[in-house]
Amino acid sequence: MANKILIDGVNWFMEPGNPNAGLAFKIQEPLFKKQTPYQLLEIFDTYEFGRLMALDQLIMVTERDEFAYHEMLVHVPLLMHPQPKKALVIGGGDGGTLREIIKHPTIERAVQVEIDFEVVKASQQFFPQLASAYDHPKVELIIADAVIWLQQTTEKFDIVLVDGSDPVGPAAGLFKTSFYRDIKSILNEGGMMVGQVGSPLYNLERCREFMGMLGSIFPFTGFYTVFIPAYPSGCWGFGLGANCELSFECSDEVRYSTFKRTLKYYNTDIHKGAFLLPETIKQAVRGNYATNGIPGRANRERTS
Amino acid sequence: MANKILIDGVNWFMEPGNPNAGLAFKIQEPLFKKQTPYQLLEIFDTYEFGRLMALDQLIMVTERDEFAYHEMLVHVPLLMHPQPKKALVIGGGDGGTLREIIKHPTIERAVQVEIDFEVVKASQQFFPQLASAYDHPKVELIIADAVIWLQQTTEKFDIVLVDGSDPVGPAAGLFKTSFYRDIKSILNEGGMMVGQVGSPLYNLERCREFMGMLGSIFPFTGFYTVFIPAYPSGCWGFGLGANCELSFECSDEVRYSTFKRTLKYYNTDIHKGAFLLPETIKQAVRGNYATNGIPGRANRERTS
Repeated sequence: MANKILIDGVNWFMEPGNPNAGLAFKIQEPLFKKQTPYQLLEIFDTYEFGRLMALDQLIMVTERDEFAYHEMLVHVPLLMHPQPKKALVIGGGDGGTLREIIKHPTIERAVQVEIDFEVVKASQQFFPQLASAYDHPKVELIIADAVIWLQQTTEKFDIVLVDGSDPVGPAAGLFKTSFYRDIKSILNEGGMMVGQVGSPLYNLERCREFMGMLGSIFPFTGFYTVFIPAYPSGCWGFGLGANCELSFECSDEVRYSTFKRTLKYYNTDIHKGAFLLPETIKQAVRGNYATNGIPGRANRERTS
Repeated sequence: MANKILIDGVNWFMEPGNPNAGLAFKIQEPLFKKQTPYQLLEIFDTYEFGRLMALDQLIMVTERDEFAYHEMLVHVPLLMHPQPKKALVIGGGDGGTLREIIKHPTIERAVQVEIDFEVVKASQQFFPQLASAYDHPKVELIIADAVIWLQQTTEKFDIVLVDGSDPVGPAAGLFKTSFYRDIKSILNEGGMMVGQVGSPLYNLERCREFMGMLGSIFPFTGFYTVFIPAYPSGCWGFGLGANCELSFECSDEVRYSTFKRTLKYYNTDIHKGAFLLPETIKQAVRGNYATNGIPGRANRERTS
């Protein structure tokens, strides 16, 4: 009865980061492999998750479940903001985050700063449904190191989304305190940022540190989770930092209704529910969290 | 850079049910293997999840994440009931469900009907922290086929928890309509049942059918999800059926506070949050679901 599978990177793919457990994907066909100036970019066609993009052997996106990540990264903050006009994406080379942002009719301009143009090009070729927004008239793509770009820009934004890889390789700078201070400095009044923090089930300490760091910079923070089966543990965490106190719920049902039919994960229920955390995670992130639908406490109150 | 892993059931374990993707566990040591009269029972010591029990090569429980499953299977319904005195567990041979039930001071009697005594014995030997309640004076263990036992018992219960395996092998009968009709017939007024339904991300159709079936039997139903990283997709679904209308929240904070410090997953936030579902799942299960913390609609209202 024993099942024999050789995980060799050709017939099967598994993230090598955790050498003791991991999700194994049977590969139908390897589609693309290139060492870019920044990272190893691979695309496989898998049987269970459709096409899969990996950067330095970390899963970035699969066709099957990318909607969960992108809808929740984008619509949670954009629907907490009463009128987001200008959005900045850091990373996000596959294009899925931009695709969701431009669904909001309030958006006038969406800027993406991605370090690796090869990721954008590969996504345009192999994930056209993700990369669909690059030609949109409201979108500007800038190929640059966001850490440096942020220090130099004079433009301000209502929303900043940090859609980077794990804190190793080219995305390491996206987990430093100075980077989030720079983000705060380019936020308009009432603005907010969200960044992906990894799995709270596998990397609870990273989530704790990240939220502690956000709490030292922003007067208001929150942590929410999303079911993403292709990512380690299936549970992914997002950290939110805002310039002002917010309620963890959709603040504009009219705007939501204009693109509601395109969504498979986000709805106004899960918007609230995603901030309601299992006890271990709640204890670890201890930032603001929603209880009974009441807005979280601001950090300045908590620490006073 | 390619990682070479041979999944052979000796050095690595992976559920063979989905031949195209699955969570692979590196085995430290195989501890136990026996073909019981009902199923193949295996226990491994894994590096990442501690000890792991598999029945017919399906993961039942791991030391690392069993708390999430057991706390949410038990405390959600027991804390929605104002005063649960008598509880019945169907399956649950590892003992984790009983362990959580007897934390409730209102419980006067907990009966477990398990078909396979070998599972109980193996759990007592290899998972003593799970099997800790079998000697409790309020607990009675009955080794029997629950499908037949249910038809013959005259005892009534406030809570019935169906803690079975997947709908193949000895647990196949635990997914039939007649079984849930029999459960309803032994529920006291105000009573409720919860059963595990599998992954809504991998088996949405099963969840849809299960909730449709519950909705044809119980006047009130609800569906909730739990993060369980060792189970396929990391997202697990539970279906609740009740004799009366309920609110999807903790109804007895005083009782909760008596064992709160023992919990790692359940809290009053996640109790509400677990019923708030991503759009695709919400559309599929369409039973009662909580919105804005307001009790779900009863099926009789929905279908009228």
